[in-house]
Amino acid sequence: MRQILVIGSGKSSAFLIKYLLDQSAVESLKLTVADKYIENASRLMNNHPNGKIIPLDIFNENARYNLIKKSDIVISMLPAHLHIDIAKDCLKLNKNLVTASYVSDDMQALDEKVKAKGLIFLNEMGLDPGIDHMSAMKALDTIRETGGDIHTFESYAGGLVAPESDNNLWNYKFTWNPRNVVLAGQGGTAKFLEEGQYKHVAYQQLFKRYKTLNIEEYGHFEVYANRDALKYQNIYKLENIKTLYRGTLRRAGFCQAWDIFVSLGMTDDSCIIENSADLNYREFVNTFLPYHPSDTVEHKLQKQFNMDSEHPVWKKLETLDLFNSNKYCGLKKATPAQILQNILMDTWSLSENDKDMVVMYHKFGYTLAGKNHEIISTMVATGADSTYTAMAKTVGLPLGIATLAILNKRIKQTGVQIPISKNIYDPTLAELEKNGIIFNDTVIF
Amino acid sequence: MRQILVIGSGKSSAFLIKYLLDQSAVESLKLTVADKYIENASRLMNNHPNGKIIPLDIFNENARYNLIKKSDIVISMLPAHLHIDIAKDCLKLNKNLVTASYVSDDMQALDEKVKAKGLIFLNEMGLDPGIDHMSAMKALDTIRETGGDIHTFESYAGGLVAPESDNNLWNYKFTWNPRNVVLAGQGGTAKFLEEGQYKHVAYQQLFKRYKTLNIEEYGHFEVYANRDALKYQNIYKLENIKTLYRGTLRRAGFCQAWDIFVSLGMTDDSCIIENSADLNYREFVNTFLPYHPSDTVEHKLQKQFNMDSEHPVWKKLETLDLFNSNKYCGLKKATPAQILQNILMDTWSLSENDKDMVVMYHKFGYTLAGKNHEIISTMVATGADSTYTAMAKTVGLPLGIATLAILNKRIKQTGVQIPISKNIYDPTLAELEKNGIIFNDTVIF
Repeated sequence: MRQILVIGSGKSSAFLIKYLLDQSAVESLKLTVADKYIENASRLMNNHPNGKIIPLDIFNENARYNLIKKSDIVISMLPAHLHIDIAKDCLKLNKNLVTASYVSDDMQALDEKVKAKGLIFLNEMGLDPGIDHMSAMKALDTIRETGGDIHTFESYAGGLVAPESDNNLWNYKFTWNPRNVVLAGQGGTAKFLEEGQYKHVAYQQLFKRYKTLNIEEYGHFEVYANRDALKYQNIYKLENIKTLYRGTLRRAGFCQAWDIFVSLGMTDDSCIIENSADLNYREFVNTFLPYHPSDTVEHKLQKQFNMDSEHPVWKKLETLDLFNSNKYCGLKKATPAQILQNILMDTWSLSENDKDMVVMYHKFGYTLAGKNHEIISTMVATGADSTYTAMAKTVGLPLGIATLAILNKRIKQTGVQIPISKNIYDPTLAELEKNGIIFNDTVIF
Repeated sequence: MRQILVIGSGKSSAFLIKYLLDQSAVESLKLTVADKYIENASRLMNNHPNGKIIPLDIFNENARYNLIKKSDIVISMLPAHLHIDIAKDCLKLNKNLVTASYVSDDMQALDEKVKAKGLIFLNEMGLDPGIDHMSAMKALDTIRETGGDIHTFESYAGGLVAPESDNNLWNYKFTWNPRNVVLAGQGGTAKFLEEGQYKHVAYQQLFKRYKTLNIEEYGHFEVYANRDALKYQNIYKLENIKTLYRGTLRRAGFCQAWDIFVSLGMTDDSCIIENSADLNYREFVNTFLPYHPSDTVEHKLQKQFNMDSEHPVWKKLETLDLFNSNKYCGLKKATPAQILQNILMDTWSLSENDKDMVVMYHKFGYTLAGKNHEIISTMVATGADSTYTAMAKTVGLPLGIATLAILNKRIKQTGVQIPISKNIYDPTLAELEKNGIIFNDTVIF
C-alpha cells in the first residue's frame, strides 16, 4: 500500500479525498488526512477502510515531521504561506510534494536541492493556477506545432453560482474563501499587453475597466484584469505576443456595483475601524461617506455615485441590507474588508443544496500561412451541492491525478515544477475529461 | 564650549545651521555637521569659526559612535527610519537627542531606559509635527483654563509656493522632498471625527473629498484629510471632542487635478513599469489608459474624466508636458510614482530665487457658559529663497531652539518626549515669534 498524506481538509479538499478513496482499492492507496479540526475530514472520509484521520497542529514540528516520515507523498492543502515548512520537511525526508498554490520565492529557492534528491515538488496544480496552465499549454503547443504564430492569448476564469441556484441580484455567491473574494485585486497593479502596448490598471480602476463577454448557452459575463499577466510571457514562451491578458469572470452587472465598495474604501484591509464592534450596517456605510447634517445615508450615496433608487447598482446594494440600522457588524477591531465580508456572507453564502459553477475561457489568436485565426476554448463545470462544489472538483481532481501519476512514475520531472509540459498536461487533461471537466473548442476563423 | 552634532544636512537643515551658528558666540557653541556628502553643509557653514564639517557614512558604526561620543547633544536630520540607530548610540553614550520626526514604535520603546539615565529624546520638534503641536496645545490649554469645553479642533498645514513666485497653473512647487509629495496620502486610510461620527477616507477618495477654505489676505485653498487624526485625541486630551480633523493645504484647484493621477494609478509606488527606461511621457500616460485602435491619448483621458480641452484640470495637465512624445522618463525599473515625480520636477522645482510659503491654520470651537465660541489661528511664513525656505525655517528653528533649551536646562523632562507641555511650547513659541513665525488669532464669535 502506498501512503498518501493530505494536510488540511478545508472546502477545496472534498473531491480530492473522494477521488483518492475511490481509487484506493485499485491503486493500493492508504490515505491519511491531517488537520487541526477533524470534523470536515470525518464527514468526507465517512469511515472509508482505506482512510485515516489524524488531528495535527501543523506548528507542532515533531508531530508534523513524524507524520510526513510515514508517507510516500504529501499533498498540502494549507494556506499558501504555510507550504514552505511542509516542503522543508519533505526535502529532509525524501518525499514528493503536491500543492495547488503559486510557487513562492521560498519554494523556488528549494529547486536545486529538490532536483539533487531526485524529488518533485509540483505546484500550481489546481484550477487557477493549474487547469489554466495545462489547457493553455496544450492549445499553445498545438498551434505552434502546426506552424502558427501566436499574437493573442487571453485567459479568463471565475468561480460563480450555477444558474439553477442563482437567486440574488448580484448573480454571485461565495464558492471559495470569501476573504479572498473581498480582497481580490489588492495584490498589486494589474498588468497586461494589448496590441503591443503595456497596460497597468491600478486597483481603483480595476472594476471600472471591465470587459464584457457572451458565452453561448451561459449568457453574459464581465471580466476584470487578474494580476500580472506579463509573467506568463516567459512561462508560456510567448515572446512575440501582442495581446496577453488574464482576467476574472463575474456575471454582467457585478463590476460596476462592486466598484462602489472599492471606491468608498470598504474593501480596505489595512486600517482598523474605530468602534467596529458597536457599528450597525448603516453606520458602517456612513463612516465612508461625507458628514451631512440632514441628508440620509441613502441620499448621500446616491448623490455621490449619481444614481437614483431604480438604478440596477442601487438595487444590488439594497438587497445586502446595507442600510439596516438594526443589524450589527459585531467584530472587534475589524478592518473594513472583514466587516464587508461578514455583511456579504448574510446574502452570498451557499445553501446546502446550492450548486456552483466554474467557468474557464481561453482565446487564442494566431497567424498561419499569412491568415489570421482565432480559437475559443471554454470549460464549464457545475457542482453537485455545497460540499462537492465545482470549485472543489476543479481544484482537487488535478491534485489527485498528479499525485497518482507521481506515485506511478508517469511524471518523471524533478525539482520545483508547475504543470506546463506535455507529459503532465496530456494525461491529466485526459483524466479530467473522464471526470466531466471538458474544454470545448470553437474555431472562429 | 558645548558641542552640538547635527547628523544630515539636507534641505531642511539650512535655518537650523544658521540659527545655531548665529547663537554660537553668545551661547558658547561648537557645531559639527556630519553628512555623507558635505557640499551642502560647506555652503551653509561658509567657514564659520565655530562650525566644523565631518564626512560620515552613518552606516559606519564606529565612526558614528565616536562622533556622538564627542558631542553634548545630537540633532538627527536623517530620514525618519534612520533615527533609531542614532538613538541607541545616544543612549549608550548618555547624550540627549532631538529630531523633527514622528515617534516610531522603536523610539517609544526606549522611553524607560532614556528616563532611567536622566536623558531626553525630544521628537516631533519641527513644523508638522512640531509647531502644530505647540501652537495647538497652547490654545487648547488656554481655552481649558478659562473653563471652555472644546468640541471642535481642526488643524491644517501646507508647504506651498509664495504668491510672488507662483507662476504655474497648479499654484504649487516642491518645497520639500518631492517623493513625499507624490506619495502623500498612501500611508493608510485617513481617519477623523466629524460631529461625533467617525469618518474613514480611503486614498482613492482622498482628493475627491477636499474642503475649501479662504484665508484673508492669502486667498483660496483646499484641504484634504491628513492621516489618522484620531490618535491626537489622547495626546491633546480631547476626550469629549465632536470634530477632530487634520488636513493638508493646497491652492484651490489642486486636488481635482491631482486626483487624475491617483485615479489612474500614476502615484503607485508598488509596481514596476515594464520598459520604463524607454517610455516617453506620452506613452507613460497611455499605459494607464485603455487601449483604443484610433483614439488619441488626449481624447481617451478627456473622455474618461469627462472634460474638454478648456477644462481647468486639462489645462493643468497640459502644462506638465504629459503628452510630449519626445521627452523620456529614462528611469530603469521605475515605479509610476518615481516617473511621475521626475515629470513633475521639470515644472515644479523651485528656481534659485523662488520663495516658498508655509501656512498653518487651526480652528478651535468650544462652549463657555452655554455659548459657542470659535477661534481661528493662522501662521504664514515666507521663505527668502530656495535655500532659506520657509519650510527649512519652520522645521529647523524649533529644533535649534529646543536644542539650546535642553543644553541650558530649561527643558527638564526626561524620556522620549514630544513638545506638548507648557514649559516647552511657551518659550519655544516666544522665540519663534522673535524670528517672525507668528500665529494670528481671530475670535469669530
